[in-house]
Amino acid sequence: MNKYCFGVDIGGTSVKIGLFTTDGKILDKWEIKTIKEDGGSAILPNIEQSLNDKMKEKLIQKSEIEGIGLGVPGPVDESGTVLNCVNLGWGVFNVTVEVTKLTGITNVKAGNDANVAALGEMWLGGGRGFSDMIMITLGTGVGGGVIHNGKIITGSKGAAGEIGHMIVNYNEEDCCNCGKKGCLEQYASATGIVKVANRLLARSNEPSYIRNRENLSAKLIFDAAKSGDKLALECVEQLGWYLGTACANIAAVVEPDVFVIGGGVSKAGVILLDVIQRHYEKYAFHAHKTKEFKLAELGNDAGIVGAAKLVIEN
Amino acid sequence: MNKYCFGVDIGGTSVKIGLFTTDGKILDKWEIKTIKEDGGSAILPNIEQSLNDKMKEKLIQKSEIEGIGLGVPGPVDESGTVLNCVNLGWGVFNVTVEVTKLTGITNVKAGNDANVAALGEMWLGGGRGFSDMIMITLGTGVGGGVIHNGKIITGSKGAAGEIGHMIVNYNEEDCCNCGKKGCLEQYASATGIVKVANRLLARSNEPSYIRNRENLSAKLIFDAAKSGDKLALECVEQLGWYLGTACANIAAVVEPDVFVIGGGVSKAGVILLDVIQRHYEKYAFHAHKTKEFKLAELGNDAGIVGAAKLVIEN
Repeated sequence: MNKYCFGVDIGGTSVKIGLFTTDGKILDKWEIKTIKEDGGSAILPNIEQSLNDKMKEKLIQKSEIEGIGLGVPGPVDESGTVLNCVNLGWGVFNVTVEVTKLTGITNVKAGNDANVAALGEMWLGGGRGFSDMIMITLGTGVGGGVIHNGKIITGSKGAAGEIGHMIVNYNEEDCCNCGKKGCLEQYASATGIVKVANRLLARSNEPSYIRNRENLSAKLIFDAAKSGDKLALECVEQLGWYLGTACANIAAVVEPDVFVIGGGVSKAGVILLDVIQRHYEKYAFHAHKTKEFKLAELGNDAGIVGAAKLVIEN
Repeated sequence: MNKYCFGVDIGGTSVKIGLFTTDGKILDKWEIKTIKEDGGSAILPNIEQSLNDKMKEKLIQKSEIEGIGLGVPGPVDESGTVLNCVNLGWGVFNVTVEVTKLTGITNVKAGNDANVAALGEMWLGGGRGFSDMIMITLGTGVGGGVIHNGKIITGSKGAAGEIGHMIVNYNEEDCCNCGKKGCLEQYASATGIVKVANRLLARSNEPSYIRNRENLSAKLIFDAAKSGDKLALECVEQLGWYLGTACANIAAVVEPDVFVIGGGVSKAGVILLDVIQRHYEKYAFHAHKTKEFKLAELGNDAGIVGAAKLVIEN
């Protein structure tokens, strides 16, 4: 195996790029702007330019590069075909073939960004040492990635790991952003938790640290829960129920070793892991009860790390 | 690739064995008794004897055998390690290593019987032409298998595909055989459907063909539904809801191309597929809505077919 590889995480605003050794060290990371005009046609040439510049700067030859991994914010199938990526203006084309054409490097692989981030956490983050892993990212939305045997499960059309759109409440009347009702994302995203809290607050008159807060946030709710606020604790309990039961149903399908929880909401820390795990163990099938729950560790680097891992054999 | 292979489906009562060509023809199939005494120690030697006898009978040389695939009624991990198989009296050991020792054939692979049956349906049955597939077997219990990219997802400890123990009803008060409450198996197994029907019958006085039947069965309920019986139709509708929502949540995790429905209950036919698909499409994430629903085709042969497929490269 060659000594170096690139991990590229293409986002709607910026492209994050990392230069790695193939044994898992980040040597450098930087960002370039995502130019979305003209169907995003400048994105790949700009990446190629940036990789070239970096190789010159670091005195690295192309022949020393093992490969280029790419995370893309949309569905990508096993073959590297992007299936409409509205955030970048991209239609349907094989992004790996394109990058090989531009760079002359043949080992190019691509995956959906959330799935690739999961792979990153498995390689160097919270899922280190495991090869069957579920990543759940609790942020503006709820994203996910499913890793089996050290590889991403892409799904048949690149749309696996949509954990946030598992239905966990069949009695919900409000709609999720996706149009369905009762999706995990409606309760476990940053705004979802606030919604759960507001519902609990509306149902009682009990005094609470989180009552009548103008900028009620997931952080405020967790902070209140940590200091023993009853309503905040109840809110965390509900969140744990939604996530724990979802994890139990995920385990029934793919039986991972570990669930890694990431995204802004996961900054709450161990209190979050514990409440998820408690509900998980109640609802999991007996053969699935003993699983690990870990916090993600790589933050925004998960994407470039996972992209690099795409081109490195186990 | 060599011309022949064996598929072996080890059950608690009998071992089914098939002789296949590696391009997918069943040349012969037969059964031997499963001898469970003495920790099931005679099972593998008896299989070896039976394979030898068959090769002699058919004038096939060992060198013409591509491999031996095994389905085992318990968890089996990627390496072929059986993790306690109470039905056979087996503890923890590597069944593939053992069969190689006995037969001298190196290409031996093993999987859980339900997962292996799913692989069989993908190769020569209802999932033919697809490589991302979920098999759901509706029988005494509800079993399952998850195929991604033409391979079984075993799970980290060989216990993936426990579709029957996804929770689909959080308000259930009765226990599933597994000890949990609200598992899919409680509604979608052969006895589960009867339970659903009895609950509907108890709730109304409406005359119905299925009322006061001594031997109410899934078949009777489907027959009544097909002839327009209102309560029976309502029962089928509920069954479709439970299975359809479970399939939607499965798709959120692994996004298959096709759901293949097998087991005794699936003899109901297209009426069953249609009602599952209708509810599925209502609850599935938008990127997952267009999936196929098919009936299993191989019946009891799925196990030997899938076992044979284990040792044949794609």
